Order: sequence, then C-alpha cells, then structure tokens
Amino acid sequence: MLFIDTKTECPIYEQIYRQIRDKIMSSEWKSNMKLPSSRQLASELQISRNTIEQAYQQLYAEGYLFSKPRIGYYVEKLNNTLISPHFAIPTSEIIAQDTIKDQYRYNFRYGKLDYRYVPFKIWKNLMMQCFGEEMDGLVSYSGHQGDVRLREQITKYAAEYRGVKCDPEQIVVGAGTLYCLGLLCNLLRKQATRSIGFEDPGYGKARTAFKNAGFKICPINVDKDGINIKELDASGTTAVYVTPSHQFPTGAIMSISKRLQLLEWANRKQAIIIEDDYSCHFRYNVRPIPSLQGINQTANVAYLGNFSKSLLPSLRLSFIVLPLSLLDSYKTIYQKYNTTVPYLFQRTLERFMRDGYLDRHLRRVLQVYKKKHDCLVQSLNREFGDKIKINGRNAGLFITVKVNSKLLETQLINRAAELGVRVYPVSDHWERLEQYDGKTVLLGYSSLDLDEIEQGVQLLRRAWFG
Amino acid sequence: MLFIDTKTECPIYEQIYRQIRDKIMSSEWKSNMKLPSSRQLASELQISRNTIEQAYQQLYAEGYLFSKPRIGYYVEKLNNTLISPHFAIPTSEIIAQDTIKDQYRYNFRYGKLDYRYVPFKIWKNLMMQCFGEEMDGLVSYSGHQGDVRLREQITKYAAEYRGVKCDPEQIVVGAGTLYCLGLLCNLLRKQATRSIGFEDPGYGKARTAFKNAGFKICPINVDKDGINIKELDASGTTAVYVTPSHQFPTGAIMSISKRLQLLEWANRKQAIIIEDDYSCHFRYNVRPIPSLQGINQTANVAYLGNFSKSLLPSLRLSFIVLPLSLLDSYKTIYQKYNTTVPYLFQRTLERFMRDGYLDRHLRRVLQVYKKKHDCLVQSLNREFGDKIKINGRNAGLFITVKVNSKLLETQLINRAAELGVRVYPVSDHWERLEQYDGKTVLLGYSSLDLDEIEQGVQLLRRAWFG
Repeated sequence: MLFIDTKTECPIYEQIYRQIRDKIMSSEWKSNMKLPSSRQLASELQISRNTIEQAYQQLYAEGYLFSKPRIGYYVEKLNNTLISPHFAIPTSEIIAQDTIKDQYRYNFRYGKLDYRYVPFKIWKNLMMQCFGEEMDGLVSYSGHQGDVRLREQITKYAAEYRGVKCDPEQIVVGAGTLYCLGLLCNLLRKQATRSIGFEDPGYGKARTAFKNAGFKICPINVDKDGINIKELDASGTTAVYVTPSHQFPTGAIMSISKRLQLLEWANRKQAIIIEDDYSCHFRYNVRPIPSLQGINQTANVAYLGNFSKSLLPSLRLSFIVLPLSLLDSYKTIYQKYNTTVPYLFQRTLERFMRDGYLDRHLRRVLQVYKKKHDCLVQSLNREFGDKIKINGRNAGLFITVKVNSKLLETQLINRAAELGVRVYPVSDHWERLEQYDGKTVLLGYSSLDLDEIEQGVQLLRRAWFG
Repeated sequence: MLFIDTKTECPIYEQIYRQIRDKIMSSEWKSNMKLPSSRQLASELQISRNTIEQAYQQLYAEGYLFSKPRIGYYVEKLNNTLISPHFAIPTSEIIAQDTIKDQYRYNFRYGKLDYRYVPFKIWKNLMMQCFGEEMDGLVSYSGHQGDVRLREQITKYAAEYRGVKCDPEQIVVGAGTLYCLGLLCNLLRKQATRSIGFEDPGYGKARTAFKNAGFKICPINVDKDGINIKELDASGTTAVYVTPSHQFPTGAIMSISKRLQLLEWANRKQAIIIEDDYSCHFRYNVRPIPSLQGINQTANVAYLGNFSKSLLPSLRLSFIVLPLSLLDSYKTIYQKYNTTVPYLFQRTLERFMRDGYLDRHLRRVLQVYKKKHDCLVQSLNREFGDKIKINGRNAGLFITVKVNSKLLETQLINRAAELGVRVYPVSDHWERLEQYDGKTVLLGYSSLDLDEIEQGVQLLRRAWFG
C-alpha cells in the first residue's frame, strides 16, 4: 500500500515515486510484478491520474520499471543485493591541519614568503580589471598551453632574467612544477624513455613525481659544482633532471664548465636535460650564471620556471620552455587538454608583468631576502663558529647546516622543536640514504624577520650544544 | 685589449666581466692563458684594483677562470664549440587565438557558459574577504589534497546532489578533470593496471588522457542505457571510465539496472569504475539517478566531479572521491605534492558553498539552461521534423543531431560555417571511427540566448537542406 502525506512539502508524485522505488529496491515488490494501472491507483489514493503517470514515467526513465505497450508497467529485474544500506558518514575527527596556528615560535620553513613584501594591492587591482574586461575568457575553457599574451611576457622575462631564448610557442603554463614534470614524463614516455638521471641528494618531491609516473631513478652524485658528469654518463640514462642555479638541497651552483660538459653529454647521447630553475632570482653576492637553455638553444633542454618564489606560491603558476625536439609531440598529445591555470590568474599575471610590476617587485624582494640571508649566515657563524658547516649560501631561500656533534638529523630536529624552533630534514632528498652524513638540517628564512632569525639561531645553539 | 666606457650606466666591473667572458667564450682567450694581474690591468685601465678583482672573482665563481694560489687567474678549459651564437628570436607571427573575436554569428559551443548568469559579484566579494583573512595560506604552499574545509563542503554537496557518500578524507581537489584522470592513472599504474574500458563513442579528451598516461584503450559499445556490460566483461580489462549521468557524446542516461550490472561487474572482477559525473546538475524533465558511488560505497568507484559547468570553467576546479581501496596508495604517492588549485580559489569556493550561494546559483541556472534546452529541441523539431534525430535530450548542456541526408560530418560543419553557424564534430569521440554513422554533429547551447538558438537553427536548415 502506498500512502500520501498531504501535510508535507514533498510533491505527491515524488512521494509515490519514492515509495515504489524503495519497495523495488528492498525486493518488497519483486521483478516482473505488474504495477497497478494508473487509473486504479489514482482512484485508490484519490489523486489525479496524471500524478501517478508522472511517478511511473520517472521510475521508467530511471530503469526501475519496464513497460508492455497497452498493458502497463512491470518491475525490472534488478540485482539489488549490491545496494548497500545508506550508512551514516562517520563523524570524522578531522584535524584542520591547514588552520592550526603555527606551533613553533621560529619556523625555518622553506618556501613560505614574507607576506609584507607580496604586492597584494596591485595584484588585486589588476585582477579586478580582468573581471571587468575578460568576461568571455572567464566563462570559457581555454587551451592547455596558456594565453598567448602571457606566454609572450614569459618569453621576454625568461630572456631578460635567465638568458633563455625561445619563442612563445615553446612555452606551456601549468599548475606547479610537479604538474609540469608529469607532463614531461608523458612526452618522454612516448619516446620510450623510462629512466631519469637524478641528483642525489636532489629535490625529493621531483624524484617522487618521476617515480609516480613510472620512471626509474638513476641516482647521480653531486659535486661542489653540480651533478657528476662521469657518473651520469656511466648510468646509461638519456634524460636528467638538474637544479643548476642552486642545487636542491646542497645549494651548489653549477659552474659554467660543468654546464658545458652537461650540454656536451646531452648532445653526444641525444639526451634531454630537464633544468629546474626553481629559485633563480635569489642570488646575493654574485651574478646569475645563464641557464643551460640560454647557453645552447639547440640542445635538448626543457627549462622549468615558476612564480612561486618570485611572486606567490599559492598561485600555482609554473611554466615549461619546451625544446624544439619535444614541441611536435607536445602539440599532438596535449592539443585537446584545457589549461590547468585559471584564466583569471593568467590574465592578471600578464598585466602584472607587462606593466613592470614584476621587475619592480623582484628588485625589492632581492634586497629583502638578501638581508635575511646575510643575517642568518652571520648569526650562525656567531653562535656556532666551526661547530657547523653552512652549505648553499649566496643563492636561493634556504641553506643547509651540517652540525659537528654526535646528534643525528632526527635528534637535531627534535631538540630544536623542544625549544620551539622548526628546522627541516635533508634525508627526504636522498635516494641512497646510506651516503648521507645524517647530521644535516635545512633552514628556510624567507618568512622570518631579522629578529626572529637571530633569536631562532640562539635557541638552536642551546638545543644542540646546551 | 679591454675598453672602459665611462658614459654608459653599466658598472665598470661589469664591463670588464663581460668583455673577458666574451673573449673566453669566443676562444680569443684560450684555455690555460694567464690573465693579467689585477694590479697590472688596473694601472692599464686607470681604474681601481678592487674593480678588477670584483670582475675576476665573478668570472671565477662562474667557472670561466681557475686560480693558482699567489700566482693568479687562468682561463678554464671550456668546451665552447657547443655555444650557439645568440640568435635573435624570430618575430613570431602568433595569432592570439584566445583574443580573436568569435567569427561565428551563432556558435553552438559546448562548455561555454552564459556570463549573465555567473555570480561574479558575490564571487569577487568573497575573494576579497579571503585576501584579508587568509594571508598565511596565500604566502605558503599547501597540501595536495586541498583545504580540509573545502573538502568538507564538497562532501556535503556531493551527498546532497548526487547521493555520494564519503568522508572528506577521500576527496582530492585538482586542476581539471584531465589532471584528475592523470592522477588516477598514476594510482592504477601502481596496481599494474595498464588498460581501460572506454565508452565508444566516449569523451575524446579523457581517452587522450589515458593514452598519454600509457594506457591501452579497450573500446566498448554504448547502448541506449549506457555502456555494454557484456563487451566490457569480455574485454578482460579491470578498469572502466564511464559518464553515467549523460553519456558523452550520445547523451544516454545509464539506467539503474545497468548501474547495478556495472557495479556487479566491478565487484566480481575486483575492477575499478571511474565515474565522471561531469555535468550532473543539468537534468530537465526527470530527476537525477543516484551516482554509482552513491548506490554502493563499498564498490571500487572513483567519482569525478567539477565546478566547470555548475560555476565557471576557467576556475579549473575538479575533485575526485577516491574509493577506500585507493586511499592508502594515494596518500603514499601524493603526500609530498602541493595542490594544483590556487588557495585563493579553494577558500573562496568554500565560503561560496558554505553560505548557500552555490545552491541558489544551481537552482537559478537549472531554469536558465532548461529554457535554452527546450528552445533548441523545439526549434530543431520545428525546422527539421523527421529529417534529423536528436540524441542526448533532457540532460547536460549539449545534444547531438543525426542528419538524414547525404552530407557527412565535415560537410555538415562546413555548410553551417558558411552561414556563420558553428556546430561541432562527434568523430573526435570515436575510437573505432568505422562504427560511426558519419552524419552527426554536436550542439552546445549554454552560451546562446533564446533568439540566437532559434535563428541559428533556421540557418542550419538552410545550410543542410537549402
């Protein structure tokens, strides 16, 4: 029997629909059972025949019923043993990690920026302009490669700052460096490349991205001036990922000599170099060395840049400069994809660059972060003297500290944490952990002010040497 | 000989640096040549010895020189045959495709929305609030899965609208559906799955994404009520991609009976179903059928949703509901990644959903797009009668039209274009083109107004039947 509740707001046809559906799903009404005719049911329930028909048609459209012409509706044969009871979602006790107030007094977090020096006001104004003027692009999908006007600005920018020489057609904008690496892996896979030479230690997240894409990692040692070419050569791989501007995490700057050797290797082996220029702007006491891509544009260099350090990490805006050798393959494979970067941000960034705001911003933050860098190095020297060895100075937004004591990485981190100071492990960045000295930690300084850096370092001395 | 230009703004040390670098790179100064002492050169050029030292140290730091203690600097041995001349970037004649004014009078473009019904004002206001209140998140990287508060909102939303039952821990937000598919491919690859059952015809971009990730496509016919289960079963694959709400591009709605069969198949084969619910909100004359995920949460269903149709395509905001079977693997593989969705948009969307704006917006646009849908179907029936067959009615934001004439797809499209009307091919969505009737085109209607739809259809009749 069906029931009609006239006091509820639920429409009558829906009440009928639901009750019949539930009867079918619970097997109360079995398959092949004939339903009462709409006339019969309408009279029984004292409602309009149309209302019954509406409910039946809905059930029919959804496949609960089948019909025999001029006879009526029947219950479909459904395999409803698979239907699970509508279980209540457990009240999850989720800790909103993102929202937890930083529990450390001094957090030497790498990659976080100093909000006081982010040009939010200009960015907001430009973004509002885009809302007014870019309506058509906002309500559409747009191509994978990114807006051509933004790619033109990026071309100029990469030439100006990094000596990268390319055409806007070689540029692809994407949602972060790891996304871009995944894209390159798809291109390499088409060429039957399945392994990658990787600095060891090297940027752990990138290594994970290659592994996740099914690539075999060939770990290669890092010398003081960058990746070891002999080992790379011996590994037999035909692709390599490097961070020449400020090797992650050793901070080594690849010398021009090493750069030429690497290019020569790529040339000889018909290999591809993936050059991640992840924090190229931050060089404090020497001028930047030109990018590998800039030294030789005929070599197989895929250049990766991003705006995470130079502008804002949460934008998720990176770019690839594809070598000519991968361009056709990219166009074939990705022509149908949509971009991964919101159109609003693409258009805002283009204006930001075009109107000179990025240049101005970079000049400013270079001074800001140089002061923080110098302060950290001086504080460490003052507090520790030769009890530590600092690596990775003069570039980037982090340094590493090797501590001459019996403490191992975890102890160094935990002792610091006990005094409210957060420093970071280097072990994440090793593929062959057995080669790691075990006594090094990583310190980012971009989000701390000078006082905090000094006080943090004093606490580190107490934590590690009492 | 080196020259100093005192009239330029270029610092003297840099002039020296550049000239020496160029001499080395052009092999004018050969390797192992000893450089003049700084004292000697300073006196020669009548400048300070410090300036020379500064230039030498820069060259040394960059690896152009080596030094012998207490003797001086020498030119490094560089393999500079690889250095390409600094070629000028060809003045590329790039057509700013994105900026070209639409050349069609009536563009039946699929996926573009009607900007008049996008809640820009509310969105902008909420975004500005986030700028004020979310500073810490904006200047940081954040986790791959997405902000937990947004995931909680998505959990409620998916339950409410699609019967999806999950915990926020199962949700991952990502930059578009194809990005999410790439992610799922990485997870499946870990389980040694390398092939995917795929509706034929089926969503061409998704098929490309699977191929790009190295997956083999097993094309499976589509019946009137969705994918053919027998063929799927016979294919031997243990993964399938389906679009049950509105099959792309046939528009078939998967019946409840077919849904149960599909779930039974997955259960029996220990297979995974990828359910792309890409435009689930748009159902015009019947109520939505619950999602596969919602029917059985213990089955292996990865549910994909997005906010492209329901809010704005240019946001690039999709999400996955991971089945419990993939959760551990996801956490292991992706724990170190950063999100691909800008924090600003994550926080804005969370507020937008929390404050009820999305519900309100969906109620509104459902009416808007229903009117357009009805208008298109009526216009087509009026103009063409039984000269065409319409498929994919009553759901989604497009329909397909099979034209009963001798014209083939390309001719249908070209003839329409000659009269200023853009319609779209279906052939892109076939894996086995030989099975395609060759006479079908796809019409989206979401960006056109009612008058435009009527006039566009009149022109189509002229184009196809004179």
